[in-house]
Amino acid sequence: MKTLLNKMDKKLNFKRAKAHCDVPCGIYDPIFAQIYALTVVRMVDLLEEHVKIKEKDLEYYNKMSRLIENKEEHAEKTKHEIRIIWGDFIKPTHKEKYPQIDNLVHSIMVLASESRQHVSKKLALELVSKVNEFAEIFWAIKGEKTIRAKAPYAPNLELVYRKL
Amino acid sequence: MKTLLNKMDKKLNFKRAKAHCDVPCGIYDPIFAQIYALTVVRMVDLLEEHVKIKEKDLEYYNKMSRLIENKEEHAEKTKHEIRIIWGDFIKPTHKEKYPQIDNLVHSIMVLASESRQHVSKKLALELVSKVNEFAEIFWAIKGEKTIRAKAPYAPNLELVYRKL
Amino acid sequence: MKTLLNKMDKKLNFKRAKAHCDVPCGIYDPIFAQIYALTVVRMVDLLEEHVKIKEKDLEYYNKMSRLIENKEEHAEKTKHEIRIIWGDFIKPTHKEKYPQIDNLVHSIMVLASESRQHVSKKLALELVSKVNEFAEIFWAIKGEKTIRAKAPYAPNLELVYRKL
Amino acid sequence: MKTLLNKMDKKLNFKRAKAHCDVPCGIYDPIFAQIYALTVVRMVDLLEEHVKIKEKDLEYYNKMSRLIENKEEHAEKTKHEIRIIWGDFIKPTHKEKYPQIDNLVHSIMVLASESRQHVSKKLALELVSKVNEFAEIFWAIKGEKTIRAKAPYAPNLELVYRKL
Amino acid sequence: MKTLLNKMDKKLNFKRAKAHCDVPCGIYDPIFAQIYALTVVRMVDLLEEHVKIKEKDLEYYNKMSRLIENKEEHAEKTKHEIRIIWGDFIKPTHKEKYPQIDNLVHSIMVLASESRQHVSKKLALELVSKVNEFAEIFWAIKGEKTIRAKAPYAPNLELVYRKL
Amino acid sequence: MKTLLNKMDKKLNFKRAKAHCDVPCGIYDPIFAQIYALTVVRMVDLLEEHVKIKEKDLEYYNKMSRLIENKEEHAEKTKHEIRIIWGDFIKPTHKEKYPQIDNLVHSIMVLASESRQHVSKKLALELVSKVNEFAEIFWAIKGEKTIRAKAPYAPNLELVYRKL
Repeated sequence: MKTLLNKMDKKLNFKRAKAHCDVPCGIYDPIFAQIYALTVVRMVDLLEEHVKIKEKDLEYYNKMSRLIENKEEHAEKTKHEIRIIWGDFIKPTHKEKYPQIDNLVHSIMVLASESRQHVSKKLALELVSKVNEFAEIFWAIKGEKTIRAKAPYAPNLELVYRKL
Repeated sequence: MKTLLNKMDKKLNFKRAKAHCDVPCGIYDPIFAQIYALTVVRMVDLLEEHVKIKEKDLEYYNKMSRLIENKEEHAEKTKHEIRIIWGDFIKPTHKEKYPQIDNLVHSIMVLASESRQHVSKKLALELVSKVNEFAEIFWAIKGEKTIRAKAPYAPNLELVYRKL
Repeated sequence: MKTLLNKMDKKLNFKRAKAHCDVPCGIYDPIFAQIYALTVVRMVDLLEEHVKIKEKDLEYYNKMSRLIENKEEHAEKTKHEIRIIWGDFIKPTHKEKYPQIDNLVHSIMVLASESRQHVSKKLALELVSKVNEFAEIFWAIKGEKTIRAKAPYAPNLELVYRKL
Repeated sequence: MKTLLNKMDKKLNFKRAKAHCDVPCGIYDPIFAQIYALTVVRMVDLLEEHVKIKEKDLEYYNKMSRLIENKEEHAEKTKHEIRIIWGDFIKPTHKEKYPQIDNLVHSIMVLASESRQHVSKKLALELVSKVNEFAEIFWAIKGEKTIRAKAPYAPNLELVYRKL
Repeated sequence: MKTLLNKMDKKLNFKRAKAHCDVPCGIYDPIFAQIYALTVVRMVDLLEEHVKIKEKDLEYYNKMSRLIENKEEHAEKTKHEIRIIWGDFIKPTHKEKYPQIDNLVHSIMVLASESRQHVSKKLALELVSKVNEFAEIFWAIKGEKTIRAKAPYAPNLELVYRKL
Repeated sequence: MKTLLNKMDKKLNFKRAKAHCDVPCGIYDPIFAQIYALTVVRMVDLLEEHVKIKEKDLEYYNKMSRLIENKEEHAEKTKHEIRIIWGDFIKPTHKEKYPQIDNLVHSIMVLASESRQHVSKKLALELVSKVNEFAEIFWAIKGEKTIRAKAPYAPNLELVYRKL
């Protein structure tokens, strides 16, 4: 093992630079986080529609409970996906070029938590907006062009897509 | 099933029409399954590269174990995503228009299991191919056009994308 | 798929015949899915009892929330178990003998999703019925006889059991 | 809330006695744990067969890794299922009648952990044996008769079944 | 069990002595379970505060649902952590010295389940108390001294800490 | 982000101040991440010991596989715990006082990923060191004093503890 450590020490600068490309590296895509964030908005929309129902019967509670749970789950998944890309893909050199990225990622964590704590279209839209911003930086780092296009499912918000 | 559907139609009438659109409905996207299947191919590639290493040290076992685990996980996720869309989005009317869809979904389950059981580029490529086929049907049902384009990460296979 | 099967048959020959019997093969049992489906009925029963309570206090919300969550979880597990047996155990030759099996599995997916979306005894009973039907086919394929007997826990519905 | 606590205090002896019958109560079945324990034996058998293969290629490592992982998972699930029944179903009055039950449950935890730590047919068989013993006590408490019959899948060990 | 232990002792001899120290052995700490139990109390406090709100709007249901879910999760984690230490760390010799430990562990399982089934400060406090008791025994077995000190977060209950 | 914060401040005003204190707020403790990181070191130690074994039998592979899996799991949990505290507890005002915190959190993500990708005592020790550093800042923000003391389990490294 010592030999290994020594061998690694010699190559560490170089190795480190590509370290995250072993596993699960290579295949990062912000589209996961973008669709999850969009789903948070969708759940808020459905909740705001649902709460108007007057009769508080089993169907009411069942759907209320499921919408909240789905909002929770997708806000959490948004955070998880962004954390992976930030932790495994973003390197110090990227931070130099995009010094705002740590704050951006932190704000996504904050907005996703707030989107769990509240039922707020405003917060959920801000979450999508920040995740889109992250996607733009990600694709720029990868050297890919992006465009904005409406998602093909409600709430049909604009998402940042890689240009094909 | 028809009898059941008929019986329920009378009882639940218009509810049925929008049943799957409550939660988690609306936001289905085969891109998840496509990227997961692509990741299976990637893991096979990395495994075939990795096994060439002569020295069977800790780094060897560590990476071997992680690559296999990642292959497992993404093959499983492929199955899970396809099952959700098949079960929640695909309706009897879609089956009439695409009578091959049940067999297609079954073959994806089989290929994903086989991709777990073996380390086979052939099987993994077939899995991607079948998931792409599913994606094409899905977008056709949604009335969206698709194009084929190379994925922006190794192994850079062609995936079916919705045309923006 | 046929082309694929043929192509692979030549390459993998006898391997294919026992492919699904490696892992996690061999030990499939529909009793899991049957008990999960039964639990969905149980949750519906408890929910219909619970909603009669007049006072909407913490105990009320706590139990409501837990019953719904349990319904969700067991409907989901029903789907997962059936998908595994369908994908890993059911072979093309079985489909020839039981051509209804794909539709049956699809209807289980649909009913389980609807049992999550609603609080409906009717839907939950249909789910149990379809899963029982699946169990009967499964045991017939295995060459085992079955009987129907009441489950030893509420709601004491008839389940299909392998004859001991 | 105070009122609730007061109300509960008055009914606490009685309420406690049936407390676990709310959710997820009612539907307990040791067959889950029995099949999981049986699967541990199966994995040991497959591992002992697999290790004989001379060529240490990718297929070798892939299957080795999967068999170990499956052994892990099912030993863990065995513990989880037994813990649930012990914690939620077994009451002090049952312990009076079956004073060995705490030790039995503890020995299942120990054997399941040892079955994870080792690849030992002896330990895995002991695990099945203890879980069967637990099943017998469980059904006796429920007032149901049991028989022993061979499981319909390899390794075809005798399991304790409720007599239909 | 004794017979089994004796029989195995002859076969596995020194292996047994260190059996649980392989993996995940060595690093057991009751502080996890203690903080989880404390969180259950916290959730009860927040629920009792929350239920006073008059307006039953989306924010009300959202928070109610999340508090209940968190109570569920942490009660479950309490059980899981205690089960691990009990099953993997506690040996027959420890049981001789602390013959109450099986009953103590069982009572933690019962109280954690009851804390899920109800919203009861009384039950949650009892849970913390029992987990503290378990922690004291654990550290005594390890030969470490303990002190009681207030937790640095609401509800600031006394927890048993290892003396540094 | 500032613009967003300002805009929201006007709308949500006092709500924001306590936003993260609803759920799961209040009970944050870096001790979880510290013990998880310590476990990564432990797994590396056990792996380095284990690899010396000459005979590559089932016990060898079983333990190798489990040690690697445990290393994976605890490195991942380290990241998850730190992300939660960073996202839910750390506020802009804290960042002003501890401007290094974003970089520190990012380096924990990087080191935890590298500790998964390699079997390296050096990397694992660095991970513990960074997590300790995070713990010190956390407790300082909470106004609690800390001391360093050896953990009561191998590898007995110094951890930062809140002073009781």
